[in-house]
Amino acid sequence: MAQKIRLMIPGPTPVPPAVTAAMAQPLIGHRTQEFAALHARLEKKLQQVFGTEHEVYILTSSGTGGMEAAVANTINPGDRVLALVTGKFGERFAELAQVYGAEVEALEFGWGNPVDPGVVEDRLKRGPYKAVLATHNETSTTVANDIRAIGELTRRYEVLLLVDAVSSLGGMEIQADAWGVDVLVTASQKALMVPPGLAMISVSPRAWEAAKDARAPRYYFSLPAAKKSLAKYNTPYTPAVSLFAGLDVALEMILSEGLEKVYRRHRTYSRAVREALKALGLKLLAPETCASPVVTGAWAPEGLDADDLRRRILREYGVLLAGGQAQLKGRIFRIAHMGYVDAVDVLGAIAALEMGLYQTGFPVTFGAGVAAAQAVLAGGNADV
Amino acid sequence: MAQKIRLMIPGPTPVPPAVTAAMAQPLIGHRTQEFAALHARLEKKLQQVFGTEHEVYILTSSGTGGMEAAVANTINPGDRVLALVTGKFGERFAELAQVYGAEVEALEFGWGNPVDPGVVEDRLKRGPYKAVLATHNETSTTVANDIRAIGELTRRYEVLLLVDAVSSLGGMEIQADAWGVDVLVTASQKALMVPPGLAMISVSPRAWEAAKDARAPRYYFSLPAAKKSLAKYNTPYTPAVSLFAGLDVALEMILSEGLEKVYRRHRTYSRAVREALKALGLKLLAPETCASPVVTGAWAPEGLDADDLRRRILREYGVLLAGGQAQLKGRIFRIAHMGYVDAVDVLGAIAALEMGLYQTGFPVTFGAGVAAAQAVLAGGNADV
Repeated sequence: MAQKIRLMIPGPTPVPPAVTAAMAQPLIGHRTQEFAALHARLEKKLQQVFGTEHEVYILTSSGTGGMEAAVANTINPGDRVLALVTGKFGERFAELAQVYGAEVEALEFGWGNPVDPGVVEDRLKRGPYKAVLATHNETSTTVANDIRAIGELTRRYEVLLLVDAVSSLGGMEIQADAWGVDVLVTASQKALMVPPGLAMISVSPRAWEAAKDARAPRYYFSLPAAKKSLAKYNTPYTPAVSLFAGLDVALEMILSEGLEKVYRRHRTYSRAVREALKALGLKLLAPETCASPVVTGAWAPEGLDADDLRRRILREYGVLLAGGQAQLKGRIFRIAHMGYVDAVDVLGAIAALEMGLYQTGFPVTFGAGVAAAQAVLAGGNADV
Repeated sequence: MAQKIRLMIPGPTPVPPAVTAAMAQPLIGHRTQEFAALHARLEKKLQQVFGTEHEVYILTSSGTGGMEAAVANTINPGDRVLALVTGKFGERFAELAQVYGAEVEALEFGWGNPVDPGVVEDRLKRGPYKAVLATHNETSTTVANDIRAIGELTRRYEVLLLVDAVSSLGGMEIQADAWGVDVLVTASQKALMVPPGLAMISVSPRAWEAAKDARAPRYYFSLPAAKKSLAKYNTPYTPAVSLFAGLDVALEMILSEGLEKVYRRHRTYSRAVREALKALGLKLLAPETCASPVVTGAWAPEGLDADDLRRRILREYGVLLAGGQAQLKGRIFRIAHMGYVDAVDVLGAIAALEMGLYQTGFPVTFGAGVAAAQAVLAGGNADV
C-alpha cells in the first residue's frame, strides 16, 4: 500500500477534504461578481478570526510576504524599531525591518523564553520608538507570547504594534482591535487549514496614519493598492483564486465550530502532547507557563540525533515531525497540532514517537505517552 | 442543471483535470526530500519552456510580484530605464520601475500597435540605458511584440532586457538565452494551465552582475535568497506547495505534446478566431501582422456596449469573455485561447458570440463565424 503521510509539522498542515474539494472546482475569473462575492464572504469571516472591525487584506504570498507588507507600508529608513526576539521568526521580523532601513533594536529573550513585558516597558521608557515587532507564536521554540500585555504597553507608549501571527491565527485567540494590534499578519497554511500561498493582514487606523508617510518602494505589497481594490472586493493583482475558494470553506468550518471551541481544542492537544512527552521522560523545550497551544517541542534524549529519530519515524510510520532550526538543529523535535488535526492524529503521533524512540535504543514503556495524552483528552479540556 | 462556465479570458485559464487532481493530493512538507525532488523536476521542465540553461526561480505570488522581483533586483534609483509601452501591462512595468526610483522613459507605441524596433534603436543610440522593459504579449491590446528583435538591439547596445512574458510563456515561443533576455517573468495561470499563485523568473549572468549592485530594499522578492535556496531545491519562504504539484503535471503535458506543437496550436486558434470575427463583420483590435497567438480582441459593433454583450453571453451561455481595460473599456471584447483550450472550446465561444450578437440586435448569419473558424481548424495549421 502507498504510505500515508501525516503532517505534524507547523505548516503546511493537513487540508480538510472539503477544502480540497472547493479548490478543485473549476476556476472562476477574478474580475467577476462571483469572485467579488467570495471575497466579501472571506472579508467578514476573517474579521471575526482577526477580532477586528477594520479591513483584512488577502495577499497572494507566503506569510513572510505579509510581514514584508507590514514593514514596507509603515516603517521608513531611520525609524527606531524595537524587535522582540524569542526565536527564528522574531529574528526574521527584525531582519526585515533592517532591510527597510530601520534602526532596529533587537530585544532578545533567549530561544525558549517568552517576551517579558516588564523588560519591554523598560525599553519603551527610553523611547520614542516608531514600532514594536512581536511574534505571537514563536514556532521555532514552541513559545507563545502575551500579545495582549504587549499591546497594553504599545498603546500606553503610543508605539505601533506589528504582530506576526502566521502560525497562531485560527488556533490561538487574538483580538486585533481589543488588544491594540496595529498590523496583524497571518498565512493560510497553518491553523487556517489551507495550502500555502495566501497571507492575510489587518491594519488599524493608527497604522494607516503611519502608512501615509511611508516612503519605501513597494508595488506588489502596497497596502493602499490593496485597500483601493477591496472597496470593490477586488485585488490589485491576480489572486490565487483556488486558495481563496479553499479558505472560504476552511473559515466556515472554524466559525461553525466556534472560535472558543477551536482555541480550547488546540490547548487540549497541546496539554495532551506535553503530558505524553513528560511521561516518556523527555524534557520540554518551552516552559509550560508559555507553552504554545499549536506546536510542542522537546529535547531529544541525550546522545540521540533528533533528526535521525524524525527520519526513522517518517520512514517507518509516515508521521512527519518538525526538527529544530538554527542552533536547535538536531537537538529537538517538534510536534505540531494545529488546524485539521484531531485526537486520533495526536495519539497516533505519540505512539509513532514511542516506536521510534524504542527502535533507536531509548528505553520506552510502550503506551506510556499515549496513556498520558489519553488522560488529558478524556477530560476534553486542557483548562480544567 | 448548474451552469457550466467556460473561461475564455486571458487568465485564470481552464485547469486540466489531471492538474486539479495533482493539487488535490495530500500536501507534502516543503522541507522534505519529496519537495526537493518535485522542485528539481520543475526546474528542468521550466528551463525547457524558458529556453534557458540558467536557473528559473519560482515565487509564490502573481506575475506582478515576479515583475517586481525583476525590477527590484536589477534597478537602482536614478538608473535610466527605457520602457516599451504597447498597452496596460507595459504601463505597469514602467510604473514599477518608477516606484523603484528609476528615471523611466516610456516609449509609447499606442494601444493596438506593436513595438517598432527601429524606434527603439533610435532611442538606444541616445543612451546609455541600464535596462529596457518589454512586454512579450500585451494582453490588453492583443498585440505580440518581437522580443527576438528587441533582444538583438539590447545586446548590441549592452543594455539589460527585462521581459514580461506573463501571458505568453507556454503559448508563444520564447528563448531566453538565444534571444538575449536577461530577466524573463511569467505566471502560472495563463498558458501554463495552473491556477494563479506562482510567478517564475529566469536570470541571465549579465542580470546577476547588475543584481550585485542592487540597493532597493527587498526580502520576499530577493533573487539572491531564491538562488541560495534553489541550490538545495528549496525556497526561502513557504512555497504554494499544491500549485507546485499542479505545475509539475501541467509542464509534463506541455512537454509531452512538444513545444513546437503547442505553439502551433495557439497560432492556429488565433487565426481561427480572427477569421471568425472578420466573417462576422467585426473589426479586429490588433493588426494581423502582430496579432497575439493567445488572445484575440475585436471592437464591439457601432452603438453596442461590449460589456453588455459580454454579460449576456456569460448569462445565457456560460462563456466568459474578457472586456477592455482603461480607455478600451466597453469598446472591445477579447477571446483568450491560451492553455487548456481546444478546438471545440474555440468553436463554442464563437457560436455563443454569434448568439449574443444576434440577441443584441446585430445582424448575424448564424454559423458564419463558426464556419470561418472551422475552415482554419480543418487545415490544422495557421502557418500554411
